[in-house]
Amino acid sequence: MEDDRYRARLINCLSGVKTACLIGTVDNEGATNLAVFSSLFHLGANPALMGLIFRPHVTPRHTLENFKETGFATINLLSSSYQENIHHTSARFSKDQSEFDRCGFTPEFLNEGVAPFVKEAQVKWSLSFVRQVDIPENGTHMVIGAVEDVFIPQNILKEDGFLDLAAIDPCLVTGLDCYHQVKSGTRYAYAKPDHKPQALS
Amino acid sequence: MEDDRYRARLINCLSGVKTACLIGTVDNEGATNLAVFSSLFHLGANPALMGLIFRPHVTPRHTLENFKETGFATINLLSSSYQENIHHTSARFSKDQSEFDRCGFTPEFLNEGVAPFVKEAQVKWSLSFVRQVDIPENGTHMVIGAVEDVFIPQNILKEDGFLDLAAIDPCLVTGLDCYHQVKSGTRYAYAKPDHKPQALS
Repeated sequence: MEDDRYRARLINCLSGVKTACLIGTVDNEGATNLAVFSSLFHLGANPALMGLIFRPHVTPRHTLENFKETGFATINLLSSSYQENIHHTSARFSKDQSEFDRCGFTPEFLNEGVAPFVKEAQVKWSLSFVRQVDIPENGTHMVIGAVEDVFIPQNILKEDGFLDLAAIDPCLVTGLDCYHQVKSGTRYAYAKPDHKPQALS
Repeated sequence: MEDDRYRARLINCLSGVKTACLIGTVDNEGATNLAVFSSLFHLGANPALMGLIFRPHVTPRHTLENFKETGFATINLLSSSYQENIHHTSARFSKDQSEFDRCGFTPEFLNEGVAPFVKEAQVKWSLSFVRQVDIPENGTHMVIGAVEDVFIPQNILKEDGFLDLAAIDPCLVTGLDCYHQVKSGTRYAYAKPDHKPQALS
């Protein structure tokens, strides 16, 4: 058992430092749910699709169940100052306890019929459920979502479409329990084979 | 066309700050290849599986072709001091130009018959090819790989299996062209519903 935990920590760390995002959902009875995920990945820009990995659905997985039941989830990026609250959403709350309330976040319904956003999040968007892909090798599930409404502060959106995420001090995570901040970045010009990339000013 | 690029930049940024990893492969004739990816994600610890997203295979995708042809790829995490070299691997080199040579990295064959590692990488592991999952919604391909040999410096591996990746100053990336450093992190105890998470000293 301790070996399993050692292995889980190590392999979870190996895939690198990620952004910790909060996924907001609601069930058909109106009970809201919030959970931290670090498995969000880009699938394509046109159409705008993202993927998420869910652990085996052998115990209740409220986020997955609600996402399928209502067809919507919200992805919320928060400042690292919320890292304690973010980690708290990983505790096993029962379905009648909303993580919004218990972990200090405010549900915000920006579009009727869609899942709750996190009011405290600076960058957030909704995903509509597209398809679930089961991974028989280990019982996990990949869910493909389509990007719907996007809410971002104007000052971090640059003229060419680049989003200066570092400016919102996003909460990053390594493995299951280590939270980090990112330093501001350096952009480079489109890379060409014959010379070293040029940093953009 | 400019609208497409704007959209691609924005949607690529939206999924958050990621770790930039270099994937090393070789074809059956021995030609080595190296490419930067930010789409690596954790699929499970037991068995240890990871996923990678590849863009549509309509133009040559050397990494995907080599991974399938030989059954192996290496994942290499580098210090952010290599960010220019890492970005350079995204240029369109022809198949007879190895990115190892052109971008200033040294191929290292640690296990016979397996793909080349990057000598300069501090954390690296090999993946064996498990399965390709095609995503018809946009023509991309998810590849599932199994973690094989892992090479990590002993000083960043903690007693409980946690890997202090921040200590190697890993190169992070936002979108397609912005490279970052991470700050050292704070670990929290396993979260419980009834109280705020405790930071571990």
